[in-house]
Amino acid sequence: MLKQLTLPLPDDFHIHLRQGSDLANYAKRAAEQFGRVLAMPNTEPPINSAETVKKYKEEILAAAPNLDVLLTFKLNKNYTEQELLAMQKNGVAAAKYYPFGVTTNSQDGVSKIEDIYPTISLLEKLDLVLSLHGEELDAYCLDREREFLKHLEKLCREFPKLRIVLEHVSTLEAVERIFDLPQNIVATITAHHLILTIDDVIGASLKPQNFCKPLPNSPQDRDAVRRAAFSGNRKFFFGTDSAPHPLEKKECLGGAAGIYSAPVAIPILIEEFEKENKLDLLPNFIAGFGADFYKVPRQTKTVAYIKEEWQVPKTIDGAVPLRAGEILKWQK
Amino acid sequence: MLKQLTLPLPDDFHIHLRQGSDLANYAKRAAEQFGRVLAMPNTEPPINSAETVKKYKEEILAAAPNLDVLLTFKLNKNYTEQELLAMQKNGVAAAKYYPFGVTTNSQDGVSKIEDIYPTISLLEKLDLVLSLHGEELDAYCLDREREFLKHLEKLCREFPKLRIVLEHVSTLEAVERIFDLPQNIVATITAHHLILTIDDVIGASLKPQNFCKPLPNSPQDRDAVRRAAFSGNRKFFFGTDSAPHPLEKKECLGGAAGIYSAPVAIPILIEEFEKENKLDLLPNFIAGFGADFYKVPRQTKTVAYIKEEWQVPKTIDGAVPLRAGEILKWQK
Repeated sequence: MLKQLTLPLPDDFHIHLRQGSDLANYAKRAAEQFGRVLAMPNTEPPINSAETVKKYKEEILAAAPNLDVLLTFKLNKNYTEQELLAMQKNGVAAAKYYPFGVTTNSQDGVSKIEDIYPTISLLEKLDLVLSLHGEELDAYCLDREREFLKHLEKLCREFPKLRIVLEHVSTLEAVERIFDLPQNIVATITAHHLILTIDDVIGASLKPQNFCKPLPNSPQDRDAVRRAAFSGNRKFFFGTDSAPHPLEKKECLGGAAGIYSAPVAIPILIEEFEKENKLDLLPNFIAGFGADFYKVPRQTKTVAYIKEEWQVPKTIDGAVPLRAGEILKWQK
Repeated sequence: MLKQLTLPLPDDFHIHLRQGSDLANYAKRAAEQFGRVLAMPNTEPPINSAETVKKYKEEILAAAPNLDVLLTFKLNKNYTEQELLAMQKNGVAAAKYYPFGVTTNSQDGVSKIEDIYPTISLLEKLDLVLSLHGEELDAYCLDREREFLKHLEKLCREFPKLRIVLEHVSTLEAVERIFDLPQNIVATITAHHLILTIDDVIGASLKPQNFCKPLPNSPQDRDAVRRAAFSGNRKFFFGTDSAPHPLEKKECLGGAAGIYSAPVAIPILIEEFEKENKLDLLPNFIAGFGADFYKVPRQTKTVAYIKEEWQVPKTIDGAVPLRAGEILKWQK
């Protein structure tokens, strides 16, 4: 039986490191697990200028000096080519699209994606990535990603050379669409969408720590996400969407959406890939396809994991982590 | 414009009055809204003998002496005819079936409904009602009621004279089945299943006060429940399933299922029936069809409501009520 495993130092191509006094903890915790991260821009105020990008990167590096930090900015208006070039120079790899009101700090999100087509056209020109939170807010909560797919298809037609990531893919229909669309259209997959369904949020009891956007969906949707992750297809790679909120902002009326998975995601992935007898595909999933897509060098460092059970703490950094209190099989 | 409305004093054919120090508050609050209630038996230990039935009724009446109290007992084992007769004599109108583990205090529920067929046969003989929490625990949470319907159909075949209530009907398929089955098979409808979908639990944010079993489901399911309520068909009548839990047991990891609706249910019903221009059907829904089905006299007292806006308190009796903080249009 496999007792240890050496993996390339993982990348996380979708993480929320938050801001202010929380940022240092979350950044340090991320650096314990990952060599490189793509940090999301939904702080308040948002990351959306060369200056704020630079400052955010400095804050992250102050807490986690060895972390390789790629940045995003928020598509909450149209930008000039000069602004985009200045952000690109400061480490921006992707522009993040949030539909209005769909998740944490998206009250300045975009109401109509066509309104920012001028900027999207510049992204294509400058070879910047478009990172999509792909949900249609008007739709029934379990159908929001499916309803968004029409926008994705239109983007592909309008901007054929644009590299697009459908983040945190969560439904059967979206997985199938990504398989079918051209090579420049990819998706990230989280650890939690591999293992959770809506039963884990509102099944036997209410589990606020598993509430996130897009929602864990039906067993059929989860199984489609699993097939994608275990396919070995380079269009699917890892991004945690680790999105911590303090416990008191989760377990309340109006509880916030987001799963804190960074501290546990890699052990969970090893367990799931091992279960499916697909461990040979894990290195590309966590440290290959994503780097290739973002046109950054693949990781050369490695990290060793051992098969030794441990119990996930009930809280980490003041937030309830994914699988809190449960036993995981692998650790560093 | 209608400014006042006189209704028969409402019945609530499905309420949880809890136990211990909470019972007095909940019973008093119920008596402010209803003339008669059918009290559910899922206390800990459960109501399931002539003695516990008698004691529970006394406790309720001590807090709410004017409330007309009908009782239920829990089908967590088989009973002798003598035991059933003794409970019937003490005010029991229905036997309540809970599948194992499906909701509050159902850890002693039934694993296989056929195991209690001997008792169900006696219910038919004694003309006691079978009250069903109709969910199949093994199914995906949004399909649990649909998956239960096979059991309901089998019960109808095996016990053709048995009066059966499918409690808190919540899905399109169950509504259609109730319309189609014989006259002795009916369903209660809650206030919350008329107005909520899963969007109100895990849509924009997490709303623990709207988490209940069966879950509010899709818009199509809610609309089917509305059609049933506004049909004027005597197979559908009102039961709140008001199921308070202290705030701290709702807004937490492992939060409890149950909506506290008793204090607001009638104002909500008036509003919804008025919206659909069906106010003429409300008296039978809240104080007619249920009494007829349970073979108890219809209510003769009346109660007057006025159209005057009020804000639902954020908590009532230590629990967050349905529509907490929102404005309702009608009050007594």
